[in-house]
Amino acid sequence: MTPTPLGPVAEELAKARAAYRNWGRWGPDDVLGTLNFLDDAIRAHAAGLVRRGRSFSLALEFNEDGPQRGFRGRINPVHYMKDTGSDAAAGTQGFPHGFGGADDHVVMPLQASTQWDGLGHIFDDKRAWNGRPCTIVNGDGDSVTGIEHMRDAFTGRGVLLDVGRAFGDEHGELPDGFAVREEHLRATIEAQGATSGVRRGDLVLVRTGQLGRVRRQGGWGTYAAGDAPGLSFTTLGWLHRTEIAAIASDTWGLEVRPYEFAEPAMSPLHQIAIPNMGLPLGEMWDLEALAADCAADGVHEFLLVAAPLPVTGAVGAPVNPIALK
Amino acid sequence: MTPTPLGPVAEELAKARAAYRNWGRWGPDDVLGTLNFLDDAIRAHAAGLVRRGRSFSLALEFNEDGPQRGFRGRINPVHYMKDTGSDAAAGTQGFPHGFGGADDHVVMPLQASTQWDGLGHIFDDKRAWNGRPCTIVNGDGDSVTGIEHMRDAFTGRGVLLDVGRAFGDEHGELPDGFAVREEHLRATIEAQGATSGVRRGDLVLVRTGQLGRVRRQGGWGTYAAGDAPGLSFTTLGWLHRTEIAAIASDTWGLEVRPYEFAEPAMSPLHQIAIPNMGLPLGEMWDLEALAADCAADGVHEFLLVAAPLPVTGAVGAPVNPIALK
Amino acid sequence: MTPTPLGPVAEELAKARAAYRNWGRWGPDDVLGTLNFLDDAIRAHAAGLVRRGRSFSLALEFNEDGPQRGFRGRINPVHYMKDTGSDAAAGTQGFPHGFGGADDHVVMPLQASTQWDGLGHIFDDKRAWNGRPCTIVNGDGDSVTGIEHMRDAFTGRGVLLDVGRAFGDEHGELPDGFAVREEHLRATIEAQGATSGVRRGDLVLVRTGQLGRVRRQGGWGTYAAGDAPGLSFTTLGWLHRTEIAAIASDTWGLEVRPYEFAEPAMSPLHQIAIPNMGLPLGEMWDLEALAADCAADGVHEFLLVAAPLPVTGAVGAPVNPIALK
Amino acid sequence: MTPTPLGPVAEELAKARAAYRNWGRWGPDDVLGTLNFLDDAIRAHAAGLVRRGRSFSLALEFNEDGPQRGFRGRINPVHYMKDTGSDAAAGTQGFPHGFGGADDHVVMPLQASTQWDGLGHIFDDKRAWNGRPCTIVNGDGDSVTGIEHMRDAFTGRGVLLDVGRAFGDEHGELPDGFAVREEHLRATIEAQGATSGVRRGDLVLVRTGQLGRVRRQGGWGTYAAGDAPGLSFTTLGWLHRTEIAAIASDTWGLEVRPYEFAEPAMSPLHQIAIPNMGLPLGEMWDLEALAADCAADGVHEFLLVAAPLPVTGAVGAPVNPIALK
Repeated sequence: MTPTPLGPVAEELAKARAAYRNWGRWGPDDVLGTLNFLDDAIRAHAAGLVRRGRSFSLALEFNEDGPQRGFRGRINPVHYMKDTGSDAAAGTQGFPHGFGGADDHVVMPLQASTQWDGLGHIFDDKRAWNGRPCTIVNGDGDSVTGIEHMRDAFTGRGVLLDVGRAFGDEHGELPDGFAVREEHLRATIEAQGATSGVRRGDLVLVRTGQLGRVRRQGGWGTYAAGDAPGLSFTTLGWLHRTEIAAIASDTWGLEVRPYEFAEPAMSPLHQIAIPNMGLPLGEMWDLEALAADCAADGVHEFLLVAAPLPVTGAVGAPVNPIALK
Repeated sequence: MTPTPLGPVAEELAKARAAYRNWGRWGPDDVLGTLNFLDDAIRAHAAGLVRRGRSFSLALEFNEDGPQRGFRGRINPVHYMKDTGSDAAAGTQGFPHGFGGADDHVVMPLQASTQWDGLGHIFDDKRAWNGRPCTIVNGDGDSVTGIEHMRDAFTGRGVLLDVGRAFGDEHGELPDGFAVREEHLRATIEAQGATSGVRRGDLVLVRTGQLGRVRRQGGWGTYAAGDAPGLSFTTLGWLHRTEIAAIASDTWGLEVRPYEFAEPAMSPLHQIAIPNMGLPLGEMWDLEALAADCAADGVHEFLLVAAPLPVTGAVGAPVNPIALK
Repeated sequence: MTPTPLGPVAEELAKARAAYRNWGRWGPDDVLGTLNFLDDAIRAHAAGLVRRGRSFSLALEFNEDGPQRGFRGRINPVHYMKDTGSDAAAGTQGFPHGFGGADDHVVMPLQASTQWDGLGHIFDDKRAWNGRPCTIVNGDGDSVTGIEHMRDAFTGRGVLLDVGRAFGDEHGELPDGFAVREEHLRATIEAQGATSGVRRGDLVLVRTGQLGRVRRQGGWGTYAAGDAPGLSFTTLGWLHRTEIAAIASDTWGLEVRPYEFAEPAMSPLHQIAIPNMGLPLGEMWDLEALAADCAADGVHEFLLVAAPLPVTGAVGAPVNPIALK
Repeated sequence: MTPTPLGPVAEELAKARAAYRNWGRWGPDDVLGTLNFLDDAIRAHAAGLVRRGRSFSLALEFNEDGPQRGFRGRINPVHYMKDTGSDAAAGTQGFPHGFGGADDHVVMPLQASTQWDGLGHIFDDKRAWNGRPCTIVNGDGDSVTGIEHMRDAFTGRGVLLDVGRAFGDEHGELPDGFAVREEHLRATIEAQGATSGVRRGDLVLVRTGQLGRVRRQGGWGTYAAGDAPGLSFTTLGWLHRTEIAAIASDTWGLEVRPYEFAEPAMSPLHQIAIPNMGLPLGEMWDLEALAADCAADGVHEFLLVAAPLPVTGAVGAPVNPIALK
C-alpha cells in the first residue's frame, strides 16, 4: 500500500485527460455525462433494495451558521422573513377572518451547503464538459449543461463506502490530509461485504468522518476550503473504470487537501472528473446517521433519490438527498 | 352533485375548526402534523410499487421567467454568477494549470416555485399549528416548526388524482374557478381504478390541468394569485377523514379561486388545513408528464420522494419532487 | 432645425470615436474620465451659488414598486426586515430593559433606480474607458475603474436644462421619441437666461418631463427600456466640446428611444460617451421639484452633490443627489 | 473630570426619558425628529463655509471585506455581476456594432457599512419615535418614519469634534472602552477653537480614531459589535441641550462599549436618543482624511451633505456623506 509518487501537476493532468476523457461518448449534444450510466432498470432494481422503509435525509441544514468562510465569495444562506407571526399578532397584516401568514426568502450560493456540482462548474484549459468552449457558462448561467437537465437523473442505487470506519480512528474518522486511494476503497468494500459491490450506474457515497469530527468538536473551523481527508487524484482510474454515475462525500470539496502535489494546484481531481469525465460530484453530504445504520445492519446499498433544485443554468445546486433503506 | 351552499366565512371556519382540528393528537411537542400518518411500513410498501424505474421530476424550473407577479412581495428567483467560463476564457481567474471555475448564487422566495408550505406558513386567530402562539414565527424564522424538521418525512406512496382528465375539457384541463369537491375526487378515483385508492399516510397529488393550460397558451398570465381551479373548502372533511399525510397540486394556491364565499376571504382552506389540521400543502407542482404516463399505463400510484430544502426556520421550502414508477 | 440624417450605425460610431475619444487625455492610469474637468475651484464657486439653502433630493424612492420590468435581469429593490417592531411587541427579541430594534437588508440592481453609470458599464469593440481591455470587468467586478474611485468627485456646479418646459406640451413634457439635439439645448439655455450657461466641469441635468408624465398618468408603463425622449446621438459633439463633467436626465436611459437609426442598435450614445469619452451618465433622476423651483425663480444653477454609494468594483451605483439652491 | 457613577440601567433610562423625551415637540405627525432643528437658513450659512472647494467622502467602501461579523444577521455587502466585460470579450452578449455592457446587483444589510440609523431602528418599551406603537415597523418596513422621509434633510453645517486628537494617544486614537463624556466634548471644542462651536441644527461628527487604529493594525478584528470608544450615556443631556440635528461617529455603534453599567444592557444611549429624542445616529463614518485636513488648517466646520439612499420604509440607510470645505 505504498503509493506511487505523483509527477508534476501538468504531467499528471495530461495523463489523466488522455486516459479518462469521455468527450463524445454519448454524442455531441450530451448534457448528462456519466449519469448516462444510470438507467431505469437500475432504478427499478434500486427500489427493490428497500426493506424497512426508513428514510435518511443526507442534507445539512441551510442557515447562517453554516460552514462557509468566504472562499470564492461564498456566504452562508441568509434567510429573510417577509411576513411573520409577530406581524399577525400585531394585527398589521390586514387579512380578514383571523387569517395570518408568514412568508420567507433566501439568499445563498448554490454551493453553500449540501450540493451537487453540475457539469458547468469546472473547466479544463478553457473547455467545459464534452469539449465545449467554457464560454457557454457566462453571465446568463450555463446555457447548455445547466443543472436543470439533471432534474430527474439522480435517482438510483446508492452505495456507502465508509472509509472512515474502515481506516479511521476510534470515532471512525480519517485525519485531515488522508488521501483515500483505490486500495482503501477496495478494502472498504471487502470489509463491508456483499452489499457494497460497486457497479455501473451507481451513486457512490464516500464517508471520511470529517463532518462528524467537526460536529463533535464544535464549530466549523476550517471545514470549508481547509485541509481535509478525501479522494486521491489517483482514484480517477477507479472512478472511470467502475462507470459509476456520480459520487459524493461528507467533506467540503470531495478530494484530499492539501493536494498530493509539491506544486500549487487547484482541485486537480475536479479538473479531470467534471469537464473531462462528465462525473457529477456531491459535497457536504451528511452521512453520519446513514453510516451508523449501515454499520448496524451490515447493508450498505439503498435507494438514493438526490434531486437537485432545478435552477435554470445553474452550475451546481442544493439538494436534500434521501436514502431509503 | 349540486353542492350545498356555504354559509358566511366566519361560520364555516368555526365549523371546520371544531370538526377537523388535530391539536394535541400527536402530543404537545409535535412538529410534523399529518406527516405522522406516514410511517416506515408505508414507505417500504411504496418502494414496492416501483416497476419500470422511471423517474419523473415534478418541479418547475427555478428562474427569472417564473410565475410570480409580486403578490406578498414574491419575486421570481434571481440567479447570479460569481465566476463564469467567460472569466476563465479571459484569463482573469488566476488559477494554475488550466483550471477554471464557475460559481453561482440565488435570491428567491422559498415559495417562488414548486414548494411545500410548512406548518408555520399560516395562522388562525393568532394560533399556529398545535395551538402555539403565532409569534413562534418571528424575524428569526419559525423557531418551533421550521421545515427542517420535515427533511426526511416526505417520502411515501404518491397517488395522482387527475381531476383534470376526469372532469376537464378535451385537453384534460379544468377551467378557472372550478371547485373540486369530494364527489369529484371520489369519481376520479373510481374512474382511474384500483391503484388510485387513497389511504392513510398517502401523499396525494391533484391535477387540475391549469399548469398545462398556462404552458400551452404561453406566458404565465394570472397563474400566480389569480383565478384557478382547485380544492373546494368542502373537501376539508375528506382531507381529514382520509388521514392523508400531505397534498399537492399543479396550481399556485391549491384551493379554488375565487373562493366559494360571497364575502371577502383569504385562503380559507389553508387556514383550516395548515394551523388546525397540520396538513402540509404543495403548490406549483408540474404533474403533466407524470399524469400522461399514469393515463397511459393506468397506474396512478408510485413512490414519491419530495424532500424540501431544509432551510432552518423556513415556513415553506422549494422542492424537486421525484415520482418513481 | 431640420436635422441632418444619420448614416449607418457603424459609420456614425466610427466618426464619433474619431472625433470624441478622450483616451490618454488624463494619462494611462486615469479612472475619472471627464470628472477630471471638475476641480476644487469649480466646487468652491458652486457652493457660492447657494442662496436660500433649500435642499432638493433628486432621487426616486427605492422599493418594489419601481420602474424595472426585467430588462437585463433588473428587478426592483427588495427590502427585507430582519427584526421588526412586531417582534419587539411580541417580546421575542430577548433584549433587556425595554430595548427593541429593527434591522433591514436590501437586494437590488445597482442600476435599479436613480443612479450613475460608472466607466465600466459600457464597452466599445471590447475596450473599456481609456482603451483598456473590457475584461478588467469580470466576475469580481470592475477591477480598475470601479465607482468607488469617484466617491468624492460628483460635487460641483449643477445646471438644469429644462428642455421639457422649453419644447414640451402644456405640462412641460416631451413626447416619447423626441430627440433632444444641440439646437434644443442651446435654445433652452437661451430661454432660461444667464444662470444656465454651460461651462467646463459642469454637472448637467436635462429634464425631458417623461418622469412627470409617467407619474401623472399613474403606473410605470414602459418607462424602463421603452420609448422615451432623450439626447440625440448628435449631441455627442456638444457633450465633448463643452467639457462637462457628467450629465444626467429624468429618463431610464438618457438617450432618445427609439434610436435615430434605421438599423438595430444598442445605446449608441452610451457606446461613445462612456468608454470613449469617459463621461459618466445619470439616469432616472427626479427633476420635477427642482425644475419647478428653477422655473419659479429663474435660477437654473446650484450646488449639486451626487455622491454614489461606493460599492467596490461597481459599474454603476445608486445615488441620492442633492441640489442646494 | 471624575464622572458621577451611573445608577441601575432601569433607573438611568427612566431619568433620561423624563428629561430628554421630545415626543410631540413637532406635532403628532412628525417624521423628522431633531432634523427639524436644521432649516434652510442654516443650510445657506453652511454653504457659505466652503472655502477651497475640497470634497471629502466620509464613506467606507461597500464590499465583502467589510467589518460585519454576523451580529443580528448582518453580513457584508455581496456584489454580483449580471454581465461582464469577460462576456463581452467572449462574444456571448449578442449586442450589435461592438456594443458591450456590464451590470451589477448588491445584497446588503442597510446598516452594513457607513449609514444613518433611521427613527424606526430602535424602540423603547414598545414605543417608537413620537410615542407611536413599535408595530408601525413590521414585515413591510417602517410604515410611518421610513428613511425616505429624510431624503433631503441631512444637508447642513457639519462640525468635527476630534476627541481622538484631543484625548488620544500619539496616533490621535482613543482606546476601546473610553467613554467620551460632556467634558471631553467641551474641552475638544475649546482646544479646536472658534470654528468648532456647536449650534442648534448642526450635524456633529465625533472622531474617536478607532477606525484609523483598526485600519492601521490591519483586519477588522472586533470593530463590529466589540469594545469601542464612544459616547457616554451621560452625553444625552448635551445632545438634547445643544439641539443638534444629528450625530455620527467613526465606530460601529457610536456609543462606548462596554456600556457604563454593571448590569447587562443593550445600546442604552440609542434607546434614549432614537425613540425618545428623535435623534438620527450615524455609524462607521470614515473621518480620517477630513480630520487630518481640519487639524492642518484649524477649520472644523464645513458643509455636510449626507443624503441617505431613500429605501422606502427603511429603518436605516447607507450613505456616502460629503464634507465640502
